[in-house]
Amino acid sequence: MQGTFTFLGTGTSVGVPVIGCKCRVCTSSDPHNKRSRSSALIQMGGTSLLVDSGPDLREQALREDLREIDAVLYTHSHLDHVAGFDELRAFCWRRDELLPMHATRECMDTLIQMFGWAFSEKNIYKGYVKPDPRIIDGPFFYGDLKITPLPVEHAAVETIGYRFDHPHARSIAYLPDVKRVPNDTMWQLREVDILIVDALRPEPHPTHCSIGEALEIIRQATPGEAWLTHLGHENDHTILGLELPAGVHVAWDGLKIAL
Amino acid sequence: MQGTFTFLGTGTSVGVPVIGCKCRVCTSSDPHNKRSRSSALIQMGGTSLLVDSGPDLREQALREDLREIDAVLYTHSHLDHVAGFDELRAFCWRRDELLPMHATRECMDTLIQMFGWAFSEKNIYKGYVKPDPRIIDGPFFYGDLKITPLPVEHAAVETIGYRFDHPHARSIAYLPDVKRVPNDTMWQLREVDILIVDALRPEPHPTHCSIGEALEIIRQATPGEAWLTHLGHENDHTILGLELPAGVHVAWDGLKIAL
Repeated sequence: MQGTFTFLGTGTSVGVPVIGCKCRVCTSSDPHNKRSRSSALIQMGGTSLLVDSGPDLREQALREDLREIDAVLYTHSHLDHVAGFDELRAFCWRRDELLPMHATRECMDTLIQMFGWAFSEKNIYKGYVKPDPRIIDGPFFYGDLKITPLPVEHAAVETIGYRFDHPHARSIAYLPDVKRVPNDTMWQLREVDILIVDALRPEPHPTHCSIGEALEIIRQATPGEAWLTHLGHENDHTILGLELPAGVHVAWDGLKIAL
Repeated sequence: MQGTFTFLGTGTSVGVPVIGCKCRVCTSSDPHNKRSRSSALIQMGGTSLLVDSGPDLREQALREDLREIDAVLYTHSHLDHVAGFDELRAFCWRRDELLPMHATRECMDTLIQMFGWAFSEKNIYKGYVKPDPRIIDGPFFYGDLKITPLPVEHAAVETIGYRFDHPHARSIAYLPDVKRVPNDTMWQLREVDILIVDALRPEPHPTHCSIGEALEIIRQATPGEAWLTHLGHENDHTILGLELPAGVHVAWDGLKIAL
């Protein structure tokens, strides 16, 4: 069994470069400093699960030559995680069944508010996104892959991360948008092999972890290895990497982790 | 007075390449066959007007090094023309005033339905999109640039194109999404110097002009020159160009027309 976790995007809500910005990171020639909006793909035993449908989904899918997915798992309803919803139609053309979309009740309600035509009974058009909405109320499975939703504190909207466990692969937890990890979720992170955490910038932010706050979450969870994501243009890939403790790394768009 | 019309994107709703497609155009190495979703920029005498905020707005703005715009003009509320709404915040950071957004009542209502937080009185956050909604009810001006909305038949949603006239520049009309031009609008196209028309593919489509239908609109309007846009992966840039009558051309992403 070989599973793969792919960072489709590792950037903050406006991406890097930022439109109109001439800072050192936004004008950097290092491809690691080009960050599309945070999204991920987990592939295990023939199953492909997309985490979020961000605004850069089309470019990310083209880059990874992604042709089929089995479901979408949403973390929350902010636009940098849902705005690419309509790109999902390319994945609906090639399947007979509806496309399962897992989200909290609140997140699903926002998707329905924004993209009501897709969820409507009148959606009979062949080319449209065809959602099969599934409200998250606890862990669920795709084959032997166990998916555990991880509630976190982020912003006014309800936000979750995900932990993925498979009997024959390393476990991985993905928290792309988080300001604080509640005790119940910290408990769920114990003994995870790989932990991925929001680390917006060095300075504090009201709804995202700073680098220091991300490192503190990692210290408490003590995973086998850790990766920082959802990175703003305050972070140069190489410089940030040099400042991190052993076992903590800076993710980049297209990075694949073998599970 | 030098004005410029820039094709930010010239692709159909799914863009070219299409996710997962291995056709000759989608796998072509010709950069003219890479088409982001249709959008345009008209710049005249220090004024920059963005037509639509499509899903590729960030990439388009980065490519053109676009840092400031004075207003957004919407053609209609389909996702391939509005999904990049949240990218507009980068253009709101750098101005003191709200960002004018011109749209029909129906289109504005859909924008408010989808992105209600931006239009809310509770939108006090510095980093957010700050719209100044302006309902279109006839021609309007930015300086000496006259903007005439051009109602067209396209799909179930109300759709308009735009004609731009300036006393010291060539006139240009932009109809990126159209199936049929009503008589009143055909009248408005008369004597336009440059006409840009939706030309999805050779075969007929329920809501977009085929190549033949686009050519018929151009024949009736008899502009000085004409350009085809909103192109699907059925069209190879070079092959299509060879088949067109004199004065009609295939647009591409990044093309600039001097006015």
